[in-house]
Order: sequence, then structure tokens, then C-alpha cells
Amino acid sequence: MENMYSQTLMLLPPDELSLRISRLQSLMADKSLQAILVNDLTNLYYLTGRVYLGYAYIPAEGSPIFFVKRPVELDGELVAYIRKPEEIPSALEKLGIKTPAHIGLEMGTTAYDTIIRLQKLFPNAVTADASPLLRQCRSVKTPYEIKMLEISGKHHTMVYRRIPSLFVPGMSDIELQIEIERLSRREGCLGQFRISGDTMELFMGNVIAGDNADAPSPYDFAMGGAGVDPSLPVGANGTLLRQGMTVMVDVNGNYTGYMTDMTRTFTVGHIPEIAVKAHETSIRIHRELCKLGRPGTEAKALYQHAMAIVEEAGLAQYYMGHRQHAGFIGHGIGIEVNELPVIAPRSRDIIAENNVIALEPKFVIPQVGAVGIENTYVVTAESWRCITNAPEELIDLEG
Amino acid sequence: MENMYSQTLMLLPPDELSLRISRLQSLMADKSLQAILVNDLTNLYYLTGRVYLGYAYIPAEGSPIFFVKRPVELDGELVAYIRKPEEIPSALEKLGIKTPAHIGLEMGTTAYDTIIRLQKLFPNAVTADASPLLRQCRSVKTPYEIKMLEISGKHHTMVYRRIPSLFVPGMSDIELQIEIERLSRREGCLGQFRISGDTMELFMGNVIAGDNADAPSPYDFAMGGAGVDPSLPVGANGTLLRQGMTVMVDVNGNYTGYMTDMTRTFTVGHIPEIAVKAHETSIRIHRELCKLGRPGTEAKALYQHAMAIVEEAGLAQYYMGHRQHAGFIGHGIGIEVNELPVIAPRSRDIIAENNVIALEPKFVIPQVGAVGIENTYVVTAESWRCITNAPEELIDLEG
Repeated sequence: MENMYSQTLMLLPPDELSLRISRLQSLMADKSLQAILVNDLTNLYYLTGRVYLGYAYIPAEGSPIFFVKRPVELDGELVAYIRKPEEIPSALEKLGIKTPAHIGLEMGTTAYDTIIRLQKLFPNAVTADASPLLRQCRSVKTPYEIKMLEISGKHHTMVYRRIPSLFVPGMSDIELQIEIERLSRREGCLGQFRISGDTMELFMGNVIAGDNADAPSPYDFAMGGAGVDPSLPVGANGTLLRQGMTVMVDVNGNYTGYMTDMTRTFTVGHIPEIAVKAHETSIRIHRELCKLGRPGTEAKALYQHAMAIVEEAGLAQYYMGHRQHAGFIGHGIGIEVNELPVIAPRSRDIIAENNVIALEPKFVIPQVGAVGIENTYVVTAESWRCITNAPEELIDLEG
Repeated sequence: MENMYSQTLMLLPPDELSLRISRLQSLMADKSLQAILVNDLTNLYYLTGRVYLGYAYIPAEGSPIFFVKRPVELDGELVAYIRKPEEIPSALEKLGIKTPAHIGLEMGTTAYDTIIRLQKLFPNAVTADASPLLRQCRSVKTPYEIKMLEISGKHHTMVYRRIPSLFVPGMSDIELQIEIERLSRREGCLGQFRISGDTMELFMGNVIAGDNADAPSPYDFAMGGAGVDPSLPVGANGTLLRQGMTVMVDVNGNYTGYMTDMTRTFTVGHIPEIAVKAHETSIRIHRELCKLGRPGTEAKALYQHAMAIVEEAGLAQYYMGHRQHAGFIGHGIGIEVNELPVIAPRSRDIIAENNVIALEPKFVIPQVGAVGIENTYVVTAESWRCITNAPEELIDLEG
């Protein structure tokens, strides 16, 4: 009987699936893993092009098996429905797959109780943490993924170009943010902003005006802001946008499941020379790192180069915050906002071709606000290619 | 030297802190736990009234200690700054606190790697899962928390009353949703929607129109919807709002860090009698469960009573979905959207005074859409008191 509703689980083109699986299997071979069992929604999306509840079993060689709990009615030759993970071992046996002796689980992101439950499925196997391997795999984007990122970047740019038109004198930071959110949503932004781990929470992004930029936040973001409520202490706090302030807009672009990060700084009227200088220093760091950050470069060397520029400009006390300083100036981005590589002083990451990196050297100038820009770049053999192309200069909202 | 910026970590009134800690300590005594070490942002918020990065150490007797990593500059006699959790044991020793022999950690929500790291802080202690205990504690709200929920409910209601004014003929589901989101944000909605675990993802809530209600979603929500992208497969999918459809609005209310859930169903013109009957059946279930659900009642008995009403009405095939059925009709709500108790067939929960419950018996009628309502109730000694008081009847958007 035909099911008029049935859909294919696999939404990736066959070549794309093969490419991702072969990269993963090559990384698994380096760690002598005979299989990995994936349950994180983000990684299931990476492996299929869709979010579903269930598991993906990736053997060291051969095709993956997708175990689905929900939704109903997904088809595919590699798809098996289960109600609970305890059904996985017998399902593998029926498929003639030998129980692995060394299996990777996502121990970096999956709850302790869940990992313990999954370990019991393979009582004779040694389990290892597969999270770093999956992060490493995802840090080098495929051409398909870069296309998804470019689409997000184009929509994101469309929104940013229209931000000045949303400003009304007398507005607060949060009122401006709400109009940017609406414009983003109407442009197709999915709203959702995936973050790995539990050191960040956010709603779509932040607009930070004036001295609110100097309010320290608990989260691991580049910038702070008090927020409007202590249950979400980051970003806009209701500051009225007044003469002499900067307004930093860091609202995310997720139009495809793949995100771009972009920050631009606006002013209300004239701002002090030191703030202008700091903004220009941010742009200079971008220019230099785009040239220096070729594949093979150490991420920490990029951090150090940027730091030298900042010190030469005499702006170190304002760099990456003033009362509280962030410990990084850039990060990989893709399905999640905090991917590899990390541009930080003790980073061990090496820049690779097709990394996608959000670079965000920023400054907080007391009594003025935050300045600087953030762009998302694709690392090519020669340099970094920008995919968030809104104007970078300070733009006066009073026109 | 005075610090002009310093703030107090503790934002709860002293009585409120004492009440929450004494409840927790009483539950800890039942499990013979000598301490719990909390790191989940949600539970840190519960224990302090603010989100911070760090830990809270709750001894079986006496005052908690709050270990803070970020933000900088928080004051309080119970506050100790640390850079990493490995500093906790010596900090406790300095405070004259004996190393516990039996300690609870949040194993249900914290990543495996993190729990292993925390276990190593107390090499001679037995560790146990403190997640169920914290969930149980939080399921009974204090008068202070109920006030926070009532404030959210009032703002949430203000937004819902204005939904018909946002409708423009020719709109799509997502266009209506964007206007509801903007209205919510302008009313003070924080946007953020905390969910425990990893079986749900969402952006502010869902608007589901027509047959999109019958698209199964991977997530553990009451209703589905295809979404506009397979990276977030739930809710609105771009359906044009046309004659004869229902439009179910389930957009969350988080105005205080404490959330209310409310769903209302709108129509575009006339809808078939069976959909009207199903909507009235939902309201009837609400009326009866509000009376039946007194403290001491088994949650599963409420589920069964509702099921009997549905079967009597001959609507079982449409209840809680049509192609795919949800396994629950209600859930606790507060700081997170999925708290205890759960109203489900195999729930072991017993209704308690000051539980706060979102009840959502809903139906999906093919070719029409979803119908039914959801309210958030406070359980009192006598009945359930509604805190989401927008009109419950079907409202024709063409008005």
C-alpha cells in the first residue's frame, strides 16, 4: 500500500553524504574507532540534512544506519525505526553488523545519564569521546555547506543594509532590536541560533548601545550588556539611543540552518575620536588577518598579531571589553555559532582551507559604547573571503 | 576602595532563598545526600534569581556557597570567585566545610565529560543524580514564583487579545507569526524559551494553519508542523491563511524568566462542525480537569479522564495529532517549559498544591487544521486557577 505522506529521511545529495561520511571515517580511523553512535540533533542534521529524534550509527567502513524515533513515516534504505535505544544492538545484528569493540559517543555534549544508557548497549565495548572528532570534521566545510553559508550571508547582508531605515529618534536599543528582528524574520531568518554547550544563551542576537556595552555578562560572548532581565543577562537593556553613543548590532543570520555572524556599529551623531580610532583598528585587524590567515597558520598567531596591532594603537584596555574582557576574537561557525577553529591566545587550532570563521575584534569605550565589526569568512588557499558584505564604516543613524 | 560597579549576586529576597534552600535540603535528606553541586544555568537561576557561569554548593545543612566564574564584580558573603571547578575543594576546606561523602550532581542535564570532571573533585565521595530532586523541588512553586508566573500570564494575555487585529487577508502563517512575535517582544517578552533536555527546539512558539497541523515533527511537542526549513522542522511552513482553515497560535509568554503557555485557535471564515465539536471538547476537558485535579490526584488519572471524554465524543483518531500522536496532554511549566508534573498515561506524578501546569488537549482535523486550547493553571487546594485568561472560543479572523 502506498503511503501518500512518506518522505525520504536523507535530504543530502548522495555525493554530499558520501563526502561527509568518508571524512568522518577517515578521522575515526585515526582514533581506531570501529563505529560512532550519534544522538546530538546538530550532528544528526549534519549527517542527513534534517533534524530528527534518534541515532545515527556510523561504522568504520560502509554505510551509516539511521535509527529514527520521530517523526513517523520517513523512508530510506538506511532507515530503521526504533522506540528506544536498547533496540539498536539487535537491529544491528539483524543487519549482519558485528558489535564494535571500540565505539565513539558524544560525551562532550550529551547528558551523563544518556551516555551511561548508551554505553550499556555495548557492554563489551570500550567507549570513547567522539565529540572532538565530530567538531573537527564539521570545522572544514564542504562546497555544499559553503553555498548554504553564502545564502545566509546574502540575506543577512540585505537586512544589515536596511538597519539605518529602521531608526526613529527617541528609540531605545531594544525597540531598534525588535525592528531588526522583524526585518530578519521577514527576510527568512529561522530565529533559532544553535550553540554547543551551556556557556551561552541568546535571543537572535544583541543590540548594545552606550555604556551598556560595559556591563559584564556571564556568557562567553565577545561583548556583554546587562539585558532587560537577570534571567537573560546579555545585550540591550532599554538604553535610549542618544547623541554621542554608538549602537553595536550583532544580530545573527540563520537563513538555511547554517549561520553567519556579522556585527556593524552605528552612531547617533558625533562620537569621540578615540572611538573612531578603535573602530578603524578593528577594520585594520580584519584586513591583516584576512591576508595572514592562510591554511597552515596557527590560530594563536593570528590572535597575537591582532594584539600587537591593538597595543601599537594604545587601545589594549578597551579591547574585547573594558570591565570584563573576552578571551577570544574569532570562532568557527556553521550549524552552531561556536565551532572550530577558535582564535584565542592558547588555541591549538591550525587554520585549514574551507574553515568558516567569524572574526570579531571589538572595543568598549566607556561613556561611548562598543565599536568594531564582525564578518564571516571562508578560508581559501590564498586568503579569507568575506560572505557578510554590508558597509563596514561607522554609519550615523541620524543620517 | 569602593567599586562603583559592584552588584549583589543574590537577587532573591532572603526569605525566598531560605524557603528554596530548606525545601531542597529536605529532599536531600530523603536521599541521604550530604551536598549537591549545581552547574546548570537554569538551576543557578532558581537558586539566585540571576544567571551566572559557575556553581552552587548546597550542603545538607547551613548556607549555600556560590562559586562564580563570570560575570566579574558580583558581591555577597556567600560568593567565591573561581577560575575552574578544580578550585572548589580547597575553597570549601578554607571555609571549614568537610568534604561530603555523598554528593549529588545534575547527571540528567549535564554533559558526560563535565560530570566526570566534577566527580574527580571529590575522589572519595559517592556521587548520585541530583536532577530528579531539583526537578521535584522546582515543580512546587513558591508564592514568589507564582507572582512571576502571573505577571507573565498577564502580558501574555494582553498579546493574545490583540492577535485578531494583526490579521491581514492574504497573509501566510509565518507572516502572522512574525507580527505576533513583534507584539510579544514589544510587550516585554524575553524571547528566550528554556527547555530541559534535547528533544525540543523552538523559536518563540508556533502558528499552525490548515493541513500543516498534520505534518509530523521530530520534537516532543503536543503539535507538529513542517516548519520552513528541515533544520527546524516544526510549526509554520508558509501556508496561506485561507477560508475554512483553523489557525492555532501557541506562542510562548516569557516576561519574567518564568513562562506561561497559552494556545488559542482562530478560524478563517466558517469551519466544519467536527472541528467546532473538537474545540468544544478541548474546553470541556479543561473544565473537568480543573475541578478533578486537586492535590493528591494521580496525573495519569487525569489523562485517563480526558481520554474518556474524547472517546465519548468519538474524536480519538484526531486527539493530540492525527498522523502522529503526542504522548501527553499537559506538563509543569516555570523556568523551563517541560517541568513536572507530566499529564501522561504512564506518569507517576501526583498533583501537588502550587504545581503550575500547562494543559493542552488538542485535536488535528484533516483538511481543516488544529483546534483546542492551552492554559496555564496554578493548582490550589480546591481546583486549578487559570493565569492565561484570553477568550477561549474560536474567533473568526475575518471577524
